[in-house]
Amino acid sequence: MKTTVLKLGGSVITDKKKELTANLPAIERLAKEISRANVSPLVLVHGGGSFGHPVAEQYGLRQGYRDSSQVMGFSITHQRMTKLNKLIVDSLISHNIPAVEVQPSSCVVTKAGRIQTMEEKPLKKMLEMGFVPVLYGDAVLDSENGFAILSGDQLVSSLAINLNAHRIVVGVDVNGLYTGDPKTDSSARLIHHITLEELKNLEPLIEGAKVTDVTGGMLGKMVELKPAVEHGIQTIIVNATEPNRVYKALKGEKVVGTVIEKGETIG
Amino acid sequence: MKTTVLKLGGSVITDKKKELTANLPAIERLAKEISRANVSPLVLVHGGGSFGHPVAEQYGLRQGYRDSSQVMGFSITHQRMTKLNKLIVDSLISHNIPAVEVQPSSCVVTKAGRIQTMEEKPLKKMLEMGFVPVLYGDAVLDSENGFAILSGDQLVSSLAINLNAHRIVVGVDVNGLYTGDPKTDSSARLIHHITLEELKNLEPLIEGAKVTDVTGGMLGKMVELKPAVEHGIQTIIVNATEPNRVYKALKGEKVVGTVIEKGETIG
Repeated sequence: MKTTVLKLGGSVITDKKKELTANLPAIERLAKEISRANVSPLVLVHGGGSFGHPVAEQYGLRQGYRDSSQVMGFSITHQRMTKLNKLIVDSLISHNIPAVEVQPSSCVVTKAGRIQTMEEKPLKKMLEMGFVPVLYGDAVLDSENGFAILSGDQLVSSLAINLNAHRIVVGVDVNGLYTGDPKTDSSARLIHHITLEELKNLEPLIEGAKVTDVTGGMLGKMVELKPAVEHGIQTIIVNATEPNRVYKALKGEKVVGTVIEKGETIG
Repeated sequence: MKTTVLKLGGSVITDKKKELTANLPAIERLAKEISRANVSPLVLVHGGGSFGHPVAEQYGLRQGYRDSSQVMGFSITHQRMTKLNKLIVDSLISHNIPAVEVQPSSCVVTKAGRIQTMEEKPLKKMLEMGFVPVLYGDAVLDSENGFAILSGDQLVSSLAINLNAHRIVVGVDVNGLYTGDPKTDSSARLIHHITLEELKNLEPLIEGAKVTDVTGGMLGKMVELKPAVEHGIQTIIVNATEPNRVYKALKGEKVVGTVIEKGETIG
């Protein structure tokens, strides 16, 4: 069986407007959906939302090391991410999912913000044994800039490629990719299916749907996910704030969302 | 500057008699001592005490994989260790120490219970940047037995050797090595200084001072620490339940405890 990689966005599992506030009912519902879908092997990656982003922003971690005052900011950012991760893993375990944290900052080093080395032996062994590894966007050490913010999206793409995953499910707080920003533009329509080639033409439109986030909005997400799609991995963006969408996407059932595929010309 | 490795035993930072009970006043006092000592670079490793051991024991994790019912036990054991780690890192951060968790199960794979591979790039980079990495005894993946329990003591020894540390400080709940079990034998006396050669002769006596613990008692501790001492790293065992002993040991000051040294014959 080939691996599925599920991303749960920070805007789904936290209240982005209230610092350090998890959306516990959403976490609980999603743990149930994941348990019910029962796909294996499964890797979960979650974002930072109101746990990681405000501190990372405050200390300018994304820009790398500038002075020693940022060092404590790094510690606090990681500590907040473990707090959020703990809530998610606790919820998964309570629904009988053998979830195990995998701390990115202890196995990844980036170079100018891009994954340079990632130790995957423990994670691969976990998958073999039936565990569900749970990673997250994290403050990590960077060989060029001292430290960096590693987004959950970069992790998703890199893991999916290295594990030769067959599907990526990205749970966000909108229904998928739109031809504009659905929150401000009533003429924006949902794109149900798109190829990499078509995506290239739509990028200027997608940019309109950006969300304030230290790791970039929907366009940043697309830029990160493209290498995985290019690799032949089907990628589905669904609204994880709506019940059953993540469940259906995990099961490969028809669901409201955006499917992104390489879309090779046949013949 | 050469690295110091500090181990805080599970019996110091938790109440071993009450499951899932941290000794918060001890954690708080030790965080202050570490902050005041201000030695750098510093790596901290802590044990599991009443957080990790009872579940690891209940699911027979130390004996490796036997059946699928243990998988959830592994998840729970790690989750409890992160809970304890969080309390310690929170306390260190509150005393202005830039502590960062390093999760052993995400960077170590053992073979029959012994460290086979450990990714140390992130940890080494943390030390370079002035962070205090905080590791712990953990349930880890094992290439031969599926999984294993990696003791904090094995980690301490391996890290100290690989980092070419100059000193290991081991904080336990007794004053050091005794010529018997001080808790039951009133004639047992504290050994202030011992060489590896002398230690060999005393091993049958030390065995008397064993504590029930999935990772072995004082003799198990000595067996783990010997390779580091052999490597030339001075190792000091002190009573971390007594104020200022860890502080003094970190500073290299005279302190009640047992100093273990290679003790090469000169000339």
